[in-house]
Amino acid sequence: MAELFFEDFEPGQTFSGSTRLSVDADSIRTFAAAFDPQPFHLDDVAAKDTLFAGLAASGWHTSAMTMRLLVDSELKVAGGLVGLGIAELKWPRPVRPGDELRVEAEVLEVRESRSRPQQGLVRVRNTTLNQRDEVVQVSVSTLIVPRRPGALGATEAKTA
Amino acid sequence: MAELFFEDFEPGQTFSGSTRLSVDADSIRTFAAAFDPQPFHLDDVAAKDTLFAGLAASGWHTSAMTMRLLVDSELKVAGGLVGLGIAELKWPRPVRPGDELRVEAEVLEVRESRSRPQQGLVRVRNTTLNQRDEVVQVSVSTLIVPRRPGALGATEAKTA
Repeated sequence: MAELFFEDFEPGQTFSGSTRLSVDADSIRTFAAAFDPQPFHLDDVAAKDTLFAGLAASGWHTSAMTMRLLVDSELKVAGGLVGLGIAELKWPRPVRPGDELRVEAEVLEVRESRSRPQQGLVRVRNTTLNQRDEVVQVSVSTLIVPRRPGALGATEAKTA
Repeated sequence: MAELFFEDFEPGQTFSGSTRLSVDADSIRTFAAAFDPQPFHLDDVAAKDTLFAGLAASGWHTSAMTMRLLVDSELKVAGGLVGLGIAELKWPRPVRPGDELRVEAEVLEVRESRSRPQQGLVRVRNTTLNQRDEVVQVSVSTLIVPRRPGALGATEAKTA
Protein backbone atom coordinates (compact mmCIF):
# COMPACT_ATOMS: atom_id res chain seq x y z
CA MET A 1 0.00 0.00 0.00
CA ALA A 2 1.25 3.48 -0.90
CA GLU A 3 2.49 5.87 1.75
CA LEU A 4 0.18 8.72 2.66
CA PHE A 5 1.13 12.39 2.49
CA PHE A 6 -0.62 15.44 3.97
CA GLU A 7 -2.51 16.01 0.71
CA ASP A 8 -4.11 12.54 1.00
CA PHE A 9 -5.99 13.29 4.23
CA GLU A 10 -9.44 14.75 4.80
CA PRO A 11 -11.82 14.79 7.77
CA GLY A 12 -14.15 11.81 7.98
CA GLN A 13 -11.72 9.29 6.42
CA THR A 14 -11.43 6.02 8.29
CA PHE A 15 -8.61 3.51 8.40
CA SER A 16 -9.02 -0.02 9.72
CA GLY A 17 -6.49 -2.24 11.35
CA SER A 18 -5.73 -5.30 9.26
CA THR A 19 -4.53 -7.37 12.20
CA ARG A 20 -5.80 -8.47 15.59
CA LEU A 21 -3.73 -8.72 18.72
CA SER A 22 -4.35 -11.53 21.19
CA VAL A 23 -3.87 -10.77 24.87
CA ASP A 24 -3.10 -13.47 27.41
CA ALA A 25 -2.45 -13.46 31.16
CA ASP A 26 1.30 -13.90 30.61
CA SER A 27 1.67 -10.83 28.40
CA ILE A 28 -0.44 -8.78 30.87
CA ARG A 29 1.81 -9.85 33.77
CA THR A 30 5.08 -9.40 31.83
CA PHE A 31 4.24 -5.82 30.82
CA ALA A 32 3.03 -5.03 34.35
CA ALA A 33 6.14 -6.45 36.02
CA ALA A 34 8.27 -4.05 33.96
CA PHE A 35 6.10 -0.92 33.90
CA ASP A 36 3.04 -1.09 36.16
CA PRO A 37 3.65 -3.56 39.00
CA GLN A 38 0.32 -3.34 40.83
CA PRO A 39 -1.70 -6.34 42.13
CA PHE A 40 -4.60 -5.97 39.66
CA HIS A 41 -2.15 -6.27 36.72
CA LEU A 42 0.04 -9.01 38.24
CA ASP A 43 -1.92 -11.55 40.22
CA ASP A 44 -5.24 -13.22 39.34
CA VAL A 45 -6.19 -13.89 42.95
CA ALA A 46 -5.17 -10.52 44.43
CA ALA A 47 -6.91 -8.77 41.50
CA LYS A 48 -10.30 -10.15 42.56
CA ASP A 49 -10.56 -7.82 45.56
CA THR A 50 -9.64 -4.66 43.63
CA LEU A 51 -11.52 -2.08 41.56
CA PHE A 52 -10.83 -4.27 38.50
CA ALA A 53 -12.43 -7.42 40.02
CA GLY A 54 -9.95 -9.64 38.17
CA LEU A 55 -6.70 -9.53 36.23
CA ALA A 56 -6.64 -6.58 33.78
CA ALA A 57 -3.99 -5.14 31.47
CA SER A 58 -2.32 -1.89 32.44
CA GLY A 59 -3.85 1.01 30.50
CA TRP A 60 -0.34 1.71 29.20
CA HIS A 61 -0.14 -1.84 27.91
CA THR A 62 -3.41 -1.23 26.04
CA SER A 63 -1.93 2.01 24.63
CA ALA A 64 1.24 0.21 23.54
CA MET A 65 -0.77 -2.59 21.87
CA THR A 66 -2.91 0.05 20.12
CA MET A 67 0.26 1.64 18.74
CA ARG A 68 1.30 -1.74 17.39
CA LEU A 69 -2.10 -2.17 15.72
CA LEU A 70 -1.80 1.32 14.19
CA VAL A 71 1.70 0.65 12.83
CA ASP A 72 0.31 -2.51 11.20
CA SER A 73 -2.85 -0.74 9.91
CA GLU A 74 -3.75 0.97 6.61
CA LEU A 75 -2.71 4.31 8.12
CA LYS A 76 0.72 4.32 6.44
CA VAL A 77 2.00 7.86 6.87
CA ALA A 78 5.08 8.78 4.82
CA GLY A 79 8.07 9.02 7.14
CA GLY A 80 6.29 7.04 9.85
CA LEU A 81 3.58 7.41 12.45
CA VAL A 82 4.81 10.26 14.65
CA GLY A 83 2.55 11.88 17.23
CA LEU A 84 3.01 15.43 18.40
CA GLY A 85 0.89 14.57 21.39
CA ILE A 86 -2.33 13.07 22.65
CA ALA A 87 -5.31 15.28 23.47
CA GLU A 88 -7.38 12.59 25.13
CA LEU A 89 -6.83 9.03 26.29
CA LYS A 90 -9.54 6.96 27.95
CA TRP A 91 -9.91 3.36 28.99
CA PRO A 92 -13.69 2.80 29.30
CA ARG A 93 -13.32 -0.96 29.86
CA PRO A 94 -10.42 -3.14 31.05
CA VAL A 95 -8.55 -5.49 28.71
CA ARG A 96 -8.73 -9.08 30.02
CA PRO A 97 -6.82 -12.30 29.31
CA GLY A 98 -8.30 -13.88 26.18
CA ASP A 99 -9.23 -10.56 24.55
CA GLU A 100 -8.51 -9.96 20.85
CA LEU A 101 -7.92 -6.31 20.06
CA ARG A 102 -8.27 -4.36 16.83
CA VAL A 103 -8.13 -0.66 15.99
CA GLU A 104 -10.11 1.83 13.92
CA ALA A 105 -8.86 5.32 13.11
CA GLU A 106 -10.92 8.32 11.97
CA VAL A 107 -9.52 11.63 10.70
CA LEU A 108 -11.05 14.52 12.68
CA GLU A 109 -9.12 17.51 11.37
CA VAL A 110 -6.47 18.39 8.80
CA ARG A 111 -4.40 21.51 9.42
CA GLU A 112 -1.48 23.17 7.66
CA SER A 113 1.56 23.98 9.74
CA ARG A 114 2.43 27.69 9.69
CA SER A 115 5.87 27.30 11.20
CA ARG A 116 6.84 24.29 9.05
CA PRO A 117 5.34 24.54 5.56
CA GLN A 118 6.84 21.21 4.50
CA GLN A 119 4.46 19.35 6.84
CA GLY A 120 0.92 19.42 8.21
CA LEU A 121 -0.95 18.17 11.26
CA VAL A 122 -3.64 15.50 11.12
CA ARG A 123 -5.85 14.92 14.16
CA VAL A 124 -7.06 11.32 14.43
CA ARG A 125 -9.39 9.49 16.80
CA ASN A 126 -8.16 5.94 17.45
CA THR A 127 -10.65 3.47 18.87
CA THR A 128 -9.45 0.13 20.22
CA LEU A 129 -12.07 -2.62 20.39
CA ASN A 130 -12.19 -6.14 21.78
CA GLN A 131 -13.67 -9.27 20.17
CA ARG A 132 -17.17 -8.24 21.35
CA ASP A 133 -16.78 -4.83 19.66
CA GLU A 134 -16.62 -3.18 23.08
CA VAL A 135 -14.42 -0.09 23.26
CA VAL A 136 -11.37 -0.59 25.52
CA GLN A 137 -9.51 2.60 24.58
CA VAL A 138 -10.20 5.90 22.82
CA SER A 139 -7.38 8.29 22.03
CA VAL A 140 -7.17 11.48 20.02
CA SER A 141 -3.70 12.08 18.61
CA THR A 142 -2.13 14.75 16.43
CA LEU A 143 0.13 13.27 13.76
CA ILE A 144 2.95 15.10 11.99
CA VAL A 145 2.47 14.37 8.27
CA PRO A 146 4.87 15.50 5.50
CA ARG A 147 3.59 17.16 2.33
CA ARG A 148 3.95 15.29 -0.93
CA PRO A 149 7.38 16.09 -2.43
CA GLY A 150 6.95 18.82 -5.01
CA ALA A 151 3.51 19.85 -3.72
CA LEU A 152 4.93 22.84 -1.87
CA GLY A 153 7.07 23.86 -4.83
CA ALA A 154 3.95 23.90 -7.02
CA THR A 155 2.14 26.22 -4.59
CA GLU A 156 5.15 28.48 -4.35
CA ALA A 157 5.37 28.71 -8.12
CA LYS A 158 1.68 29.66 -8.28
CA THR A 159 1.93 32.41 -5.69
CA ALA A 160 5.35 33.71 -6.78
CA MET B 1 5.05 5.34 53.83
CA ALA B 2 1.33 5.46 54.61
CA GLU B 3 -1.26 5.05 51.89
CA LEU B 4 -3.06 8.17 50.81
CA PHE B 5 -6.83 8.61 50.81
CA PHE B 6 -9.01 11.25 49.12
CA GLU B 7 -8.97 13.38 52.29
CA ASP B 8 -5.15 13.61 52.12
CA PHE B 9 -5.06 15.47 48.79
CA GLU B 10 -5.17 19.18 48.07
CA PRO B 11 -4.25 21.28 45.01
CA GLY B 12 -0.61 22.35 44.86
CA GLN B 13 0.79 19.30 46.62
CA THR B 14 3.80 17.76 44.93
CA PHE B 15 5.16 14.24 45.03
CA SER B 16 8.63 13.30 43.86
CA GLY B 17 9.85 10.08 42.44
CA SER B 18 12.34 8.37 44.70
CA THR B 19 13.94 6.38 41.89
CA ARG B 20 15.55 7.01 38.51
CA LEU B 21 15.16 4.84 35.46
CA SER B 22 18.09 4.30 33.11
CA VAL B 23 17.31 3.96 29.43
CA ASP B 24 19.64 2.15 27.03
CA ALA B 25 19.50 1.37 23.31
CA ASP B 26 18.57 -2.26 24.00
CA SER B 27 15.49 -1.40 26.07
CA ILE B 28 14.41 1.18 23.45
CA ARG B 29 14.70 -1.44 20.67
CA THR B 30 13.05 -4.23 22.69
CA PHE B 31 9.99 -2.11 23.50
CA ALA B 32 9.78 -0.88 19.90
CA ALA B 33 10.05 -4.37 18.42
CA ALA B 34 6.99 -5.40 20.42
CA PHE B 35 4.85 -2.26 20.26
CA ASP B 36 6.16 0.43 17.90
CA PRO B 37 8.35 -1.16 15.20
CA GLN B 38 9.40 1.95 13.26
CA PRO B 39 12.98 2.68 12.05
CA PHE B 40 13.57 5.66 14.41
CA HIS B 41 12.87 3.40 17.43
CA LEU B 42 14.70 0.31 16.14
CA ASP B 43 17.84 1.14 14.20
CA ASP B 44 20.57 3.68 15.06
CA VAL B 45 21.63 4.16 11.45
CA ALA B 46 18.17 4.33 9.84
CA ALA B 47 17.06 6.72 12.62
CA LYS B 48 19.59 9.35 11.53
CA ASP B 49 17.61 10.29 8.40
CA THR B 50 14.27 10.64 10.22
CA LEU B 51 12.47 13.41 12.10
CA PHE B 52 14.18 12.15 15.28
CA ALA B 53 17.72 12.42 13.86
CA GLY B 54 18.87 9.43 15.89
CA LEU B 55 17.52 6.50 17.92
CA ALA B 56 14.69 7.62 20.23
CA ALA B 57 12.32 5.76 22.56
CA SER B 58 8.71 5.32 21.47
CA GLY B 59 6.49 7.88 23.23
CA TRP B 60 4.54 4.92 24.62
CA HIS B 61 7.74 3.52 26.09
CA THR B 62 8.28 6.88 27.82
CA SER B 63 4.69 6.71 29.11
CA ALA B 64 5.20 3.17 30.39
CA MET B 65 8.48 4.13 32.12
CA THR B 66 6.72 7.14 33.67
CA MET B 67 4.05 4.81 35.08
CA ARG B 68 6.79 2.70 36.63
CA LEU B 69 8.36 5.80 38.19
CA LEU B 70 4.95 6.84 39.57
CA VAL B 71 4.26 3.39 41.07
CA ASP B 72 7.66 3.65 42.80
CA SER B 73 7.10 7.28 43.90
CA GLU B 74 5.72 8.89 47.09
CA LEU B 75 2.28 9.03 45.45
CA LYS B 76 0.99 5.92 47.24
CA VAL B 77 -2.76 5.96 46.69
CA ALA B 78 -4.79 3.51 48.79
CA GLY B 79 -6.00 0.69 46.56
CA GLY B 80 -3.43 1.54 43.89
CA LEU B 81 -2.72 4.07 41.19
CA VAL B 82 -5.75 3.84 38.91
CA GLY B 83 -6.35 6.39 36.18
CA LEU B 84 -9.81 7.18 34.85
CA GLY B 85 -8.16 8.72 31.83
CA ILE B 86 -5.56 11.13 30.53
CA ALA B 87 -6.53 14.66 29.52
CA GLU B 88 -3.22 15.54 27.92
CA LEU B 89 -0.05 13.72 26.96
CA LYS B 90 2.91 15.43 25.31
CA TRP B 91 6.44 14.44 24.44
CA PRO B 92 8.30 17.75 24.04
CA ARG B 93 11.71 16.05 23.66
CA PRO B 94 12.73 12.51 22.69
CA VAL B 95 14.19 10.03 25.17
CA ARG B 96 17.65 8.85 24.04
CA PRO B 97 19.94 5.95 24.97
CA GLY B 98 21.85 6.92 28.12
CA ASP B 99 19.03 9.05 29.56
CA GLU B 100 18.09 8.78 33.23
CA LEU B 101 14.44 9.55 33.88
CA ARG B 102 12.65 10.73 37.00
CA VAL B 103 9.11 11.95 37.66
CA GLU B 104 7.43 14.78 39.56
CA ALA B 105 3.70 14.90 40.24
CA GLU B 106 1.60 17.94 41.17
CA VAL B 107 -2.02 17.88 42.32
CA LEU B 108 -4.11 20.24 40.16
CA GLU B 109 -7.64 19.56 41.39
CA VAL B 110 -9.49 17.52 44.00
CA ARG B 111 -13.12 16.67 43.29
CA GLU B 112 -15.79 14.62 45.06
CA SER B 113 -17.57 11.98 43.03
CA ARG B 114 -21.35 12.47 42.95
CA SER B 115 -22.16 9.06 41.56
CA ARG B 116 -19.76 7.17 43.86
CA PRO B 117 -19.59 8.85 47.28
CA GLN B 118 -17.04 6.32 48.56
CA GLN B 119 -14.38 7.76 46.24
CA GLY B 120 -13.13 11.01 44.75
CA LEU B 121 -11.19 12.19 41.72
CA VAL B 122 -7.73 13.76 41.92
CA ARG B 123 -6.31 15.46 38.82
CA VAL B 124 -2.51 15.30 38.70
CA ARG B 125 0.12 16.72 36.33
CA ASN B 126 3.02 14.28 35.89
CA THR B 127 6.26 15.65 34.51
CA THR B 128 9.00 13.26 33.37
CA LEU B 129 12.51 14.73 33.25
CA ASN B 130 15.87 13.52 32.02
CA GLN B 131 19.28 13.86 33.72
CA ARG B 132 19.61 17.44 32.39
CA ASP B 133 16.22 18.38 33.92
CA GLU B 134 14.74 18.64 30.42
CA VAL B 135 11.07 17.68 30.17
CA VAL B 136 10.52 14.56 28.04
CA GLN B 137 6.84 14.01 28.88
CA VAL B 138 3.97 15.91 30.46
CA SER B 139 0.70 14.17 31.23
CA VAL B 140 -2.42 15.20 33.11
CA SER B 141 -4.28 12.24 34.58
CA THR B 142 -7.40 11.83 36.68
CA LEU B 143 -6.92 9.32 39.48
CA ILE B 144 -9.69 7.43 41.26
CA VAL B 145 -8.96 7.78 45.00
CA PRO B 146 -10.96 6.07 47.77
CA ARG B 147 -12.18 8.01 50.81
CA ARG B 148 -10.68 7.16 54.17
CA PRO B 149 -12.71 4.33 55.75
CA GLY B 150 -15.20 5.80 58.20
CA ALA B 151 -14.93 9.31 56.73
CA LEU B 152 -18.13 8.90 54.75
CA GLY B 153 -19.95 7.33 57.69
CA ALA B 154 -19.14 10.40 59.78
CA THR B 155 -20.58 12.70 57.12
CA GLU B 156 -23.70 10.59 56.79
CA ALA B 157 -24.26 10.65 60.53
CA LYS B 158 -23.98 14.44 60.52
CA THR B 159 -26.48 14.96 57.71
CA ALA B 160 -28.89 12.20 58.78
